[in-house]
Amino acid sequence: MSNNYPPNTPRTELSELGEFGLIDRLTGDVETKSPSTITGIGDDAAVLDFGPRQVLVTKDLLCEGVHFDLAYTPLKHLGYKAAVVSFSDIYAMNGRPRQLLVGISVSNRYSVEAMEELFEGLKLACRKYDVDLVGGDTTASTSGLFISVTVLGDIEPGQSILRKGAHPNELICVSGDLGAAYLGLLVLEREKRVFLANPGMQPELSGNDYVLQRQLKPEARKDIHEILAKAGIVPTAMIDISDGLASELLHICRQSGTGCAVFEDKIPIDPQTLMLCDEFSLIPSIAALNGGEDYELLFTVPIADYEKVKALEAVTVIGHITAADEGCHLISTDGRQIPLKAQGWDHMRK
Amino acid sequence: MSNNYPPNTPRTELSELGEFGLIDRLTGDVETKSPSTITGIGDDAAVLDFGPRQVLVTKDLLCEGVHFDLAYTPLKHLGYKAAVVSFSDIYAMNGRPRQLLVGISVSNRYSVEAMEELFEGLKLACRKYDVDLVGGDTTASTSGLFISVTVLGDIEPGQSILRKGAHPNELICVSGDLGAAYLGLLVLEREKRVFLANPGMQPELSGNDYVLQRQLKPEARKDIHEILAKAGIVPTAMIDISDGLASELLHICRQSGTGCAVFEDKIPIDPQTLMLCDEFSLIPSIAALNGGEDYELLFTVPIADYEKVKALEAVTVIGHITAADEGCHLISTDGRQIPLKAQGWDHMRK
Repeated sequence: MSNNYPPNTPRTELSELGEFGLIDRLTGDVETKSPSTITGIGDDAAVLDFGPRQVLVTKDLLCEGVHFDLAYTPLKHLGYKAAVVSFSDIYAMNGRPRQLLVGISVSNRYSVEAMEELFEGLKLACRKYDVDLVGGDTTASTSGLFISVTVLGDIEPGQSILRKGAHPNELICVSGDLGAAYLGLLVLEREKRVFLANPGMQPELSGNDYVLQRQLKPEARKDIHEILAKAGIVPTAMIDISDGLASELLHICRQSGTGCAVFEDKIPIDPQTLMLCDEFSLIPSIAALNGGEDYELLFTVPIADYEKVKALEAVTVIGHITAADEGCHLISTDGRQIPLKAQGWDHMRK
Repeated sequence: MSNNYPPNTPRTELSELGEFGLIDRLTGDVETKSPSTITGIGDDAAVLDFGPRQVLVTKDLLCEGVHFDLAYTPLKHLGYKAAVVSFSDIYAMNGRPRQLLVGISVSNRYSVEAMEELFEGLKLACRKYDVDLVGGDTTASTSGLFISVTVLGDIEPGQSILRKGAHPNELICVSGDLGAAYLGLLVLEREKRVFLANPGMQPELSGNDYVLQRQLKPEARKDIHEILAKAGIVPTAMIDISDGLASELLHICRQSGTGCAVFEDKIPIDPQTLMLCDEFSLIPSIAALNGGEDYELLFTVPIADYEKVKALEAVTVIGHITAADEGCHLISTDGRQIPLKAQGWDHMRK
């Protein structure tokens, strides 16, 4: 299962290359394309020129053993995902990602070829989303792999969509479908257990392509702003779903000073996710509410836009914003009001 | 010796606070002051407006056991240093640091109070250098502490000073003195060994204040650009000294396509550093060339500025740029030509 990089790849020790050598090898082929990138990799800082546009900046940290398990995560996918996760944050502000900086801390358990695989994924994501890789830092760690990604984006002044803009009666909308990335994780962990118990067994991953792709190689919703703009819809608040629907709803409500009501039977869930929920004896809405890593956009729109938003295939209306004193609830399929709790971020919990 | 935070501090487990709680506790008192900070902590990205100015961005990663040893590094100092190190990168481009984002990855060995100490140091550095803390990410790690810092700065278009601007015959200059941070590290490591061998012994740190401060609580040279501007000097290339003078000289020469000659007897070294070099049987110029972490500025100026730069107390002329085919050399006190080698960055070496 440990398919971190292609078989028969030669192994070059990190210690064979110095700082110059490693950075050259990993980033020697990086070209910059964005007009806002004046100077990229190779100096104390990158120089950027956003002209009259505003700058968006976001930072994410991924740690081996917490955010990813290399037993079933190819390093190229990991690099791709690390970049896309931060692009998603920029889209969630209504901006466009333009530059990426990456910090990698790695033990000598990893080879140069392994780092190249990781960078291949980062560079692939940058190419796909038209983002320039402009800098970073590569250092040793005593154990494990840590990836820190900073992404800069730009936006017209006054056009950013914050978490705090929601008002009572506005509609709560979500792009795509939810819960699939979590089911992908459950499938991978199940096959890892099977493999550890019997290393001769081949992992049974076929038929689960959609949920595996959602977990291992997610995409950011760069299309949603265009879809909304074409429909004449301006969201009032927006966030991306990294920690699960429940946690993100609570962020919007807390920062907007509102409550919310979300309907269990409106939450969009893909058929493959539903089928696997059945296999894992899991309630599908729980996967959507607490699973996380879907990188869909969650946003609110004025109630006057109901007909417009209902007509969009890529978007589902799942509930509405309420007054703060009404609290934040899921309305279950059988009509019960269940208080929402943030359970997505439990890395620190025992 | 393990003075990471004040004695009798209550211990709150990280698991007692959720994501909301921890971030509130660490950053609830953060105010933003820079006119370019539109929206700081609390959304998917920070929103910044640099108007017609260009943006500088730099990223650094610090790993426990590689970049710092918590046996003798107070967490507050560590936070302060993590910020200052990145400010130094922005000054080395001729810019001014404006915003900081921090990513912290931490195991449950650390308490909330320990994280507060670390943030106190970060916030202190931000206040001292007029920088806004605008975002970040806090996650769990399976072991150890990782700190990732991104700093944004601004600069007038066309004013950045890159590494690649040096030309033959230009003067090589350095601010302050070199080698002290490395001697500070040697003193701390010696006292740690004494302590580990006999935990009843008190560490003998008195009399070494200067080198300890240079190691534990370095400052970035925010004053140099003003000093140079007042003297009418415009550097042609610049870098900050994080990995040691030799490594930084090689960066400038490689990127400028030049060689260099640096005179051993011109390298500025503080008397306390000299005394300790004697104690540790270390050649002082080796500490300056390979020690690193001085965070002084290394830069080149036209030879026509010799009289002006000689008159500056904060700056020392240590040599000159040569043609590339002459190579990069140290001219020793006894007149030998010794090729420069980058030995600062050896985290990956065995």
